[in-house]
Amino acid sequence: MDFPAKLKRLVDRVERGLDLHLPPAATRPARLHEAMRYSLQAGGKRLRPVLVLAVHELLAGQNAKAQGPGAKSTPADPLAAAVAIECLHTYSLIHDDLPCMDNDDLRRGRPTAHRQFDEATALLAGDALLTHAFALLAEAYADRPVLAHALVRELADAAGSRRLIGGQMADVLAEKHATATADDLEFIHRNKTAAMIEAALVMGGLAAEAGPAPLATLRRLGQHLGLAFQIVDDVLDATADTATLGKTAGKDAQAGKVTFVKLHGLAESRRLAQVHSDAARAALADLPGDPAFLGALIESMAARNK
Amino acid sequence: MDFPAKLKRLVDRVERGLDLHLPPAATRPARLHEAMRYSLQAGGKRLRPVLVLAVHELLAGQNAKAQGPGAKSTPADPLAAAVAIECLHTYSLIHDDLPCMDNDDLRRGRPTAHRQFDEATALLAGDALLTHAFALLAEAYADRPVLAHALVRELADAAGSRRLIGGQMADVLAEKHATATADDLEFIHRNKTAAMIEAALVMGGLAAEAGPAPLATLRRLGQHLGLAFQIVDDVLDATADTATLGKTAGKDAQAGKVTFVKLHGLAESRRLAQVHSDAARAALADLPGDPAFLGALIESMAARNK
Repeated sequence: MDFPAKLKRLVDRVERGLDLHLPPAATRPARLHEAMRYSLQAGGKRLRPVLVLAVHELLAGQNAKAQGPGAKSTPADPLAAAVAIECLHTYSLIHDDLPCMDNDDLRRGRPTAHRQFDEATALLAGDALLTHAFALLAEAYADRPVLAHALVRELADAAGSRRLIGGQMADVLAEKHATATADDLEFIHRNKTAAMIEAALVMGGLAAEAGPAPLATLRRLGQHLGLAFQIVDDVLDATADTATLGKTAGKDAQAGKVTFVKLHGLAESRRLAQVHSDAARAALADLPGDPAFLGALIESMAARNK
Repeated sequence: MDFPAKLKRLVDRVERGLDLHLPPAATRPARLHEAMRYSLQAGGKRLRPVLVLAVHELLAGQNAKAQGPGAKSTPADPLAAAVAIECLHTYSLIHDDLPCMDNDDLRRGRPTAHRQFDEATALLAGDALLTHAFALLAEAYADRPVLAHALVRELADAAGSRRLIGGQMADVLAEKHATATADDLEFIHRNKTAAMIEAALVMGGLAAEAGPAPLATLRRLGQHLGLAFQIVDDVLDATADTATLGKTAGKDAQAGKVTFVKLHGLAESRRLAQVHSDAARAALADLPGDPAFLGALIESMAARNK
């Protein structure tokens, strides 16, 4: 398997999907739709939507084989689910960058939405991307309402007040009071980061009509992968420079944020990232299909430098 | 029919539903869940959720009759749909009140969320209520995925970038540039206000398993009722005092907002409100069932003083 070529193929598919599944920039009011596209089309790793597509490819092939050549139902196209989770992720970045949150000027090497437009437009573009994620799932899978319902439920739970937003809130509180414990930090990362990675994997599985056992394995895989990803993020914030990251480096330390690095040190953080990567790989081995691409993706996430 | 008594019964049911269908205030992180409940439990007219329940009551009775006494399926409980739309409405108020939007200190006679908590908490509580609306629909109607899907689709479309949020954006732009035309104003009100009232009526119809014809009538009813409601709002902002309104009066004029009153004058605005109320009543007459309560509700909305 040629990992970079396959990754590029999936990322290209996501980029086309983003263009296809977002309202045109000229849609009234144009400023809102321009801002939605500005933030969504700023590039980035497209990790979450790539995970949706990769899991779907892994499992849909298996299910087709199990059903035999006479099977009638074709697996659903996972692209809209991939786009929906990227809309969700992008909304969370736009709101996280706002002055009342992290007050960040740079994101993916470009001005953040409120710097490029203004605060009101950024706020509304974030709201609109969050809402569009659910509208898109409902619309794109309208002929499969059971699947649409399952995807909406997964995404809404992962993005809700107990998980993604709860993690953001706990993060804000930890920074404000500078009193976060290891338990707080785990709550923040399990929810702020791992929840959406877990949802991406599960949504790919749902689109492939995976059963309860592989869905549970995907959830476990997502939790470990999400934690590994966030710990690497903390390590990079402490060690890389702004140009490499495409966002302001050292920001967490400056802001007095409690991070894995601050709490456990660099060496132990790197070891913890490895532990979670290994656990993710072990979960992957429990899934049917050829794990080469997802295995390489996990590897690249643990070894990344931005 | 005793209108005030029936209205009180429905409002009380909504209030119990809000408590039932929101995460407990002590849910981690508590500050976020307290803020969600603070804004949601601030009272208010509960117009949108009452419309959901009232339409459901109107049409579910009809459908039960049509199916005859041997009919197996009981209509779905519309309460979760009613709570979902109130979550959606409350999120839009929280974000609309933020400093980068209307910068309002008072809402329903109490400090706005960002004054009571802080901007970051208000932002996240709004995000969480928006997300919870979809999570709740998916969870409460999990045993009826076709209905859950239809409700999510209706709510997400009404709340999306072409409608509710598009109306908010157009409103912000009109205020900034002070150049709104009658067409702009209609776009703003059709979307900022009427979209959610329309969605409330349609969601009540969906929960009652209404067919395409009554759903189309409900949509028409909602458009006129929404416009009537918004025009009355503009008239009240220009004529009532802060204590009566429970929010800062005269704010629109101060902010240089283009309103129906500014564009058409007080007398013509009152006449337009009447035109749309009449059209709403005409639509109501096209629905089956006893229209007494909904008719009285339309009347009370057109004649209200806060």
